[in-house]
Amino acid sequence: MSLVPFPDPDSDFSLANIPFGIGEFPAGPGLATRIGDIVLSCDELQKVNALGGPSCRGITDLTAMGRSGLAEIRSLILHFLEGAKTVLGYEIAGASAYPSEQIKMLKPVHIPAYTDYYSGIHHASNVGKMFRPDMPHLLPNYRHVPVGYFGRASSIVVSGTPIRRPHGQTVDSGSVTPSFGATKELDFELELGVILGQSSLQGVPIPLHQAKDHILGYVLVNDWSARDIQRWEYQPLGPFLAKSFATGMSPWVVLPEALSPYMIEGEVQEPVPLSHLRQTVPSHLDIELTVQLQTARMKTADTICRSHAKHLYWTFDQQLTHQTSNGAPTEAGELLASGTISGPTPGSYGSLLEITWRGKNPLALSSGETRTFLEDGDEVTLTGRAGTPGHFVGFGRLSHKIFS
Amino acid sequence: MSLVPFPDPDSDFSLANIPFGIGEFPAGPGLATRIGDIVLSCDELQKVNALGGPSCRGITDLTAMGRSGLAEIRSLILHFLEGAKTVLGYEIAGASAYPSEQIKMLKPVHIPAYTDYYSGIHHASNVGKMFRPDMPHLLPNYRHVPVGYFGRASSIVVSGTPIRRPHGQTVDSGSVTPSFGATKELDFELELGVILGQSSLQGVPIPLHQAKDHILGYVLVNDWSARDIQRWEYQPLGPFLAKSFATGMSPWVVLPEALSPYMIEGEVQEPVPLSHLRQTVPSHLDIELTVQLQTARMKTADTICRSHAKHLYWTFDQQLTHQTSNGAPTEAGELLASGTISGPTPGSYGSLLEITWRGKNPLALSSGETRTFLEDGDEVTLTGRAGTPGHFVGFGRLSHKIFS
Repeated sequence: MSLVPFPDPDSDFSLANIPFGIGEFPAGPGLATRIGDIVLSCDELQKVNALGGPSCRGITDLTAMGRSGLAEIRSLILHFLEGAKTVLGYEIAGASAYPSEQIKMLKPVHIPAYTDYYSGIHHASNVGKMFRPDMPHLLPNYRHVPVGYFGRASSIVVSGTPIRRPHGQTVDSGSVTPSFGATKELDFELELGVILGQSSLQGVPIPLHQAKDHILGYVLVNDWSARDIQRWEYQPLGPFLAKSFATGMSPWVVLPEALSPYMIEGEVQEPVPLSHLRQTVPSHLDIELTVQLQTARMKTADTICRSHAKHLYWTFDQQLTHQTSNGAPTEAGELLASGTISGPTPGSYGSLLEITWRGKNPLALSSGETRTFLEDGDEVTLTGRAGTPGHFVGFGRLSHKIFS
Repeated sequence: MSLVPFPDPDSDFSLANIPFGIGEFPAGPGLATRIGDIVLSCDELQKVNALGGPSCRGITDLTAMGRSGLAEIRSLILHFLEGAKTVLGYEIAGASAYPSEQIKMLKPVHIPAYTDYYSGIHHASNVGKMFRPDMPHLLPNYRHVPVGYFGRASSIVVSGTPIRRPHGQTVDSGSVTPSFGATKELDFELELGVILGQSSLQGVPIPLHQAKDHILGYVLVNDWSARDIQRWEYQPLGPFLAKSFATGMSPWVVLPEALSPYMIEGEVQEPVPLSHLRQTVPSHLDIELTVQLQTARMKTADTICRSHAKHLYWTFDQQLTHQTSNGAPTEAGELLASGTISGPTPGSYGSLLEITWRGKNPLALSSGETRTFLEDGDEVTLTGRAGTPGHFVGFGRLSHKIFS
């Protein structure tokens, strides 16, 4: 029997969280949850009869448990831990608990489709200011349509996976003759996402009031982008290879049950959306977000962005209802991401494109170095959490290091 | 024992073809090929020892046979039929042969990802003329980058599936206030596609000289489009719901072995593509294409487009090499489509958008009716074939009827 310490009050994984993922345990991959710095094997908890509920045996994909299955396991884990809340530690059958650094976390679901939106209104506005300075910053459709595009599902990787600097076609400023080589403008994008827990049929749109039922859980997303490749390729069909080389995702999926206390009203949507997109219950997220950057020379990371999920114009419910409004089907495991979540002021911008304003204003780091875009050896870490000390509901760190 | 008639010389399914699909046979779904109007069950041929080779048992997805498995079965079928070539009929074990109208053809592969390109140069040029009349018709990147975008894999349906007119947001001309309702500008797009037969790893681009090895086979594709939805949504991230409601695909996958005699030189690519995209062997397809339209009132269809695959600027090899040039992985079963294949003259345009020039020149039909875009009850049929009478290598009919 091992002693599991009561989570540090600063941990993203308080007892209010209980997220799920797939851990690579000594006995093989299986359903995992996390409390503070401890990863628990749900399968092993069931084996020692410490946990009832639907069987976790052989689970290597969260969609196999389904939304209700995960909610039930979560509440059984809370029940099991309840007696220990008032003391500084509690005992768990030793075979079920592992220090988090010992368990490699895998991709929590097979992702059959990935849709990325553009719901960060300050990001969309900044892009407009940079690329269409003489026009209104937001395009005419922005406040009517949750603008999005289909991304590359098969290149989604979880935290810790190194990101190889992609090659592609780019054109030097003023030229129209491209060359092929490593991107010089590698960038991150700070995003949130939802994983769908069930499928929907072709021809059957998901009404807004049912959208929440389809959400298995929430993740952090880093939509890696190569700006020079993007600039040359994106007309007229949108971003393609500038984004498809890799997308980062947190291995921990936070359940709607953990985030429901943190649903807030967003800014008033004006003009009022068309009736099928009119949200009547608080559906924005009270989640604080950060981006940290650590170069090879730095001993600790600099926080280069502090943003908040309230800066999303459209909710995930609205995105999902829009996405199926033409009858397109959805599949369990799909990822819908938010788009870059920038705040209104420079310290809250969620991409280097915005932070350096297309590279014009290099970012000064505490090491004395500067960055316009990312260099090899740089490590980017996204974080996001709701709540207060001792009760945080977060995703842990979504970190990737760049190499060539 | 039943007599299988020698195929009609006008059939797409001559003995030079031997495509594969998945048929819904009385004993269940299984690997199928087609000769003239006869569908053969490969599994049942093996059961009566008329066919050796890798087992077809339980095959419900062509990727499970793989490229070499299908090539081997194809050559065994040809060997089996060889002795019958000089007579007007040949005998096959009765249980293996079915009239084609009795066998429903299913989706031949699970399609994990769908990428649609813009390789029809006359189509891209026509779109430029219509929407950017004061600028060069082709954007500066067109002759350098195979422009494409990721589509919606889960809404791909095979021939015969009715297409429901999608709803979406549209804006009347001159207005900036959208409304939500059924599209008024439903259109088809005449395309070809390739199905990939194997996966490739993240970080490992597919060089051009290996691209053909990844192609399991060729299909006809109808990229259904709602032009009014597209116009309002597509800036700045490209087409999304205007295309994601449905994409049509032929159930018959024609093997590279059948089309290799019909590989031709395309038009000279000028400027010469960057070295990784420089094609040195004939890789365009000598395939004639048609679109037929039949309204509810018509007894026979009108042919409203005669085009040819040589009007594709980029080859499928170039598309695939481009798509993986940034290290993005691919999966077996993926579909890469060509984009609309229009010829240089009005009778060869592969979409109503071009045929009616944005609705300005309504299309007159033999019934006395006119069409700007598609009406409910209209049936659109695409065909495509290489070869000469008695030796045609084609896809059969890709037909869909519109309903609301």
